Amino acid sequence: MRGIRLLIEYDGSDFVGWQVQRCGRTVQGELANALCILLREDIMPIGSGRTDAGTHALGQVAHFHTHSSAATMRMLRGLNGLLPRDICIHAVDEVDLNFHARYSAKRKRYRYRIHLGKSAMQRRYTWSLHTPLNIGRMQDASAHLKGTHNFSAFCKQDPVPDLFSCAIYAADWRSEGREFIFEIEGNRFLRHMVRILVGTIVEIGSNKRSPEDVVHLLQDGRREDAGKTAPASGLHLLKVYYDNT
Amino acid sequence: MRGIRLLIEYDGSDFVGWQVQRCGRTVQGELANALCILLREDIMPIGSGRTDAGTHALGQVAHFHTHSSAATMRMLRGLNGLLPRDICIHAVDEVDLNFHARYSAKRKRYRYRIHLGKSAMQRRYTWSLHTPLNIGRMQDASAHLKGTHNFSAFCKQDPVPDLFSCAIYAADWRSEGREFIFEIEGNRFLRHMVRILVGTIVEIGSNKRSPEDVVHLLQDGRREDAGKTAPASGLHLLKVYYDNT
Repeated sequence: MRGIRLLIEYDGSDFVGWQVQRCGRTVQGELANALCILLREDIMPIGSGRTDAGTHALGQVAHFHTHSSAATMRMLRGLNGLLPRDICIHAVDEVDLNFHARYSAKRKRYRYRIHLGKSAMQRRYTWSLHTPLNIGRMQDASAHLKGTHNFSAFCKQDPVPDLFSCAIYAADWRSEGREFIFEIEGNRFLRHMVRILVGTIVEIGSNKRSPEDVVHLLQDGRREDAGKTAPASGLHLLKVYYDNT
Repeated sequence: MRGIRLLIEYDGSDFVGWQVQRCGRTVQGELANALCILLREDIMPIGSGRTDAGTHALGQVAHFHTHSSAATMRMLRGLNGLLPRDICIHAVDEVDLNFHARYSAKRKRYRYRIHLGKSAMQRRYTWSLHTPLNIGRMQDASAHLKGTHNFSAFCKQDPVPDLFSCAIYAADWRSEGREFIFEIEGNRFLRHMVRILVGTIVEIGSNKRSPEDVVHLLQDGRREDAGKTAPASGLHLLKVYYDNT
């Protein structure tokens, strides 16, 4: 038995999400189909985490176990030949059988892209907003996120998670042309956490809330007091970090 | 009667091109449908030029004449509300009845994007190439394009155009991350001209031709001596210039 790790990019626009479901096209399902054809085994790859319908990944990681003796380079070429064009594999590596894409992950980095105004070209990859945003206020709000906090206000509590505590190492905004780009890195993320953070911070950037609201939300922790959930289309999973990366 | 000019962005991926055809979804056709609903007139907007199936536009221009007295701001909002998400209108302006999107155009600027390696996210907007490219050789080749030349070698001659002469004001390559980006500006462009130029210059960048081949091709002018036509997906119409812009 061998452990194999995949580094995966996908355009989430036309998927109902990462995880196999009863209905709809999923990234995990497309990978399982391609692995079945390529390795003639019934394999369900395990991802570092789920992504929502419409959310993208530049560096999703998944692992699986196989009896196949195929070289990793052959798996890379074979999978890229079999997969639909909105998924591609950037690396296939043999890993220890103890490696687990989800439980071995140490950190994750997400990007959220906001486009000011309508855009036909960027509509699948950004949240299109028509209100001016004050990036200084958004950056001030994000500074409060760094450190270890209770993020229960920024979590879809269905189901309620065991642990609301997350350590955030970086949370920064920058502007590029007509885009506002948020990048956040942490040890773990709760369901919809980045999208609720962005939805709340955008309300701060458009002067509907103060940057200090974030401090109160991290203390009191009620979902209904935080902002709206930003659309899935703006969210991109950039990178998952493990001990050896 | 009023003359109206539209500034249009579209994601060409899911269109059979700009121009209305017997079968397939076109940008011109979608605009005509939206104008018919909005202004209750049978209007066929005239573009600055056709774009191929899969080719994108950040700044296509079109004009039409109308009996409507609707304010341009109302047309802008109405069209954006009616159009599918892969087309959007950035400006609606009243222009002289003599204005013609195609015949009044003075210059056009195109961008062509090459992505090194596979990319799920960029597949619709770039040409994915797997061979290393020497950007110095590509820039040397492009320098020969500037000035007024006979571009018959770089033209799909179906039908044969009246005039092969084009004046090129800028033609430059730059690299950004995993992308090689070509921008070219000229007074007019022949059918498939930018795509054949890029196909030929990529052969120069991968050492299959010399940069001086471009000089010979501009002198001798045989299509069969130039390179392959690069895919439509990498091509973006950036801007059309008129006397007042």
